[in-house]
Amino acid sequence: MSSLNLAVIPGDGIGQEVIPEALKVLQAALEGTDVQLTTEEYDLGARRWHATGEALPDEDMEALAQHDAILLGAVGDPSVPSGVLERGLLLRLRFAFQHYVNLRPTVLLPNVPSPLADPGEVDFLVVREGTEGMYVGNGGTMREGTADEVATEVSLNTALGVERVVRYAFEQAQARRKRLTLVHKHNVLVHAGHLWRRITDEVGAEYPEVEVDYKHIDAMMIHLVDSPSRFDVIVTDNLFGDIITDLAGAISGGIGLSASGNLNPSGDFPSMFEPVHGSAPDIAGQGIADPTAAILSAALLLDSRGLTDAAERIRSAVHADLAATAPGTRSTTDVGDAIAAAVRA
Amino acid sequence: MSSLNLAVIPGDGIGQEVIPEALKVLQAALEGTDVQLTTEEYDLGARRWHATGEALPDEDMEALAQHDAILLGAVGDPSVPSGVLERGLLLRLRFAFQHYVNLRPTVLLPNVPSPLADPGEVDFLVVREGTEGMYVGNGGTMREGTADEVATEVSLNTALGVERVVRYAFEQAQARRKRLTLVHKHNVLVHAGHLWRRITDEVGAEYPEVEVDYKHIDAMMIHLVDSPSRFDVIVTDNLFGDIITDLAGAISGGIGLSASGNLNPSGDFPSMFEPVHGSAPDIAGQGIADPTAAILSAALLLDSRGLTDAAERIRSAVHADLAATAPGTRSTTDVGDAIAAAVRA
Ligand SMILES: CC(C)[C@H](C(=O)O)[C@@H](O)C(=O)O
Ligand SMILES: CC(C)[C@H](C(=O)O)[C@@H](O)C(=O)O
Repeated sequence: MSSLNLAVIPGDGIGQEVIPEALKVLQAALEGTDVQLTTEEYDLGARRWHATGEALPDEDMEALAQHDAILLGAVGDPSVPSGVLERGLLLRLRFAFQHYVNLRPTVLLPNVPSPLADPGEVDFLVVREGTEGMYVGNGGTMREGTADEVATEVSLNTALGVERVVRYAFEQAQARRKRLTLVHKHNVLVHAGHLWRRITDEVGAEYPEVEVDYKHIDAMMIHLVDSPSRFDVIVTDNLFGDIITDLAGAISGGIGLSASGNLNPSGDFPSMFEPVHGSAPDIAGQGIADPTAAILSAALLLDSRGLTDAAERIRSAVHADLAATAPGTRSTTDVGDAIAAAVRA
Repeated sequence: MSSLNLAVIPGDGIGQEVIPEALKVLQAALEGTDVQLTTEEYDLGARRWHATGEALPDEDMEALAQHDAILLGAVGDPSVPSGVLERGLLLRLRFAFQHYVNLRPTVLLPNVPSPLADPGEVDFLVVREGTEGMYVGNGGTMREGTADEVATEVSLNTALGVERVVRYAFEQAQARRKRLTLVHKHNVLVHAGHLWRRITDEVGAEYPEVEVDYKHIDAMMIHLVDSPSRFDVIVTDNLFGDIITDLAGAISGGIGLSASGNLNPSGDFPSMFEPVHGSAPDIAGQGIADPTAAILSAALLLDSRGLTDAAERIRSAVHADLAATAPGTRSTTDVGDAIAAAVRA
């Protein structure tokens, strides 16, 4: 008997609704295996912040570090000043646990409608850097609130940080269709852009079979709507990855289906899995959020623990479910129940 | 008799091919008016840089400043290190001439194919900030070329810079469908994001009829492919504007049709007009580049000089041309000839 000791952070808005469905399916996928699932829920997010003024107390941080993995719903609420939960909770976890690979697979499944007239076969993997760039929180303001205010935001990029995520991306490309696209904006962001190119060239020399391609972030917008099928593995920085993956989600059936894993491949700290979508306050509480992205994130979690058979059972069940029913027609729990039943079948 | 004293910078790649067509059409549009067009061509871009090592000598800068407006093709060539021409020429002009409004209209014309299955009526205006943000060239690198390299890029934002572009955007919204969408990422880029929100709130109080909306840059990706018809005026910073306008171009028939104006609305320096597309080295020299974006940029130039009738003649001719012929089927000069003939008709 092996164990899987999971920390669960439903968080805010629809996070509270989709996570129970992901756990339901996870449990179903582990039935009949020798894996014993234990879960511990952490009350983090807007409610806790209002009650205590803390986004993520150090004790919780230490407790979370003891788990094998973290499953997170969504973070952010209109009642909390912008940035407090995003930076104090979500990004704090990504940074403290060195989630340097933010893995976001994009697959347009058969029968899933795309807003593109002719999407072709869409199956690519975005490897987004997760611990650097514009997300480091290095910025400030002077003469705040006046007509002379100056506000800054600093993107910090290190060879160490770029190297580890680029290497991960090459490994993935090597195991897939052997194409890697680096996305940046090196004609304007020359310093960071140069670093990303240099490291990609250097690491790429170790993967001679992988064909490497470069696209500026602006041109990437065009390619993603005109010919998304050309991409295999895309590697990019934290901010560009944030932008690309929402577009990727949109063209592949909506971010209601987009899963992500914040990985610490070294295993020093637990990896964290979450749907790409946010807390969606506009539809929260109505029981209509699509839990598929959270469920597919649970499959990525199983992958990361080497439980690929169980992960595949989830993915097959999701594919079958999507093939049978158009997205957006059932309640959150109905989708979860249907997929859990399909996993068991 | 009034005069229009134009500086022309064809620049690199297809810039050399599309600018003659834009001038041809401009000339046609001014026939029968009392406007005397004079043009002076500036040899700037890759050729000049290879010959002299200079991207934009001070003498040229001073000479350019004497013109009423600048028409630019495209800048950038694989034979020149990345950033040299972009920053040394194009961005230097935008910054020195304080082109704080980068105006990029997006219209999906009847008969123009969109990659979206159901685009609806697309007619919005992106007002991109042009003199601040990540484009200021404030960054650096330490321990360059080593495993310990650190590279930075700094986004600088001032109340002055944000206020003037936001005010311009409200003026446009007031004159259009009275909807303004601010795009940023204030849940992560809290300092710059807070500045943009504050200024938008403050200026917005002076435009009570304009309905204001906010979208994060990532969510904006989804809206632009799912429901682009909801937007009227979009205001955003330099980098987000770069990204959004390529996506906007893609969904509205391709950036072969996307025009832009780098405006100095105060009139201290000449405004500059250029297609959104780049130098496109992959298709340069073949005579197949679509000059429509450059031609529509010339129409924006006429608008900026108060020559709206002539500008409208160009736009009508382009619309008629697009309605009659699918994009991408004719040579560069054929398109220019056809539109010039339609302007005269
Ligand atoms: C909520 C927000 C801070 C987050 C991000 O920007 O990374 C989200 O958009 C995502 O993509 O996971
Ligand atoms: C060529 C490049 C520097 C430029 C930019 O990033 O502004 C271009 O992409 C544009 O949109 O005009």
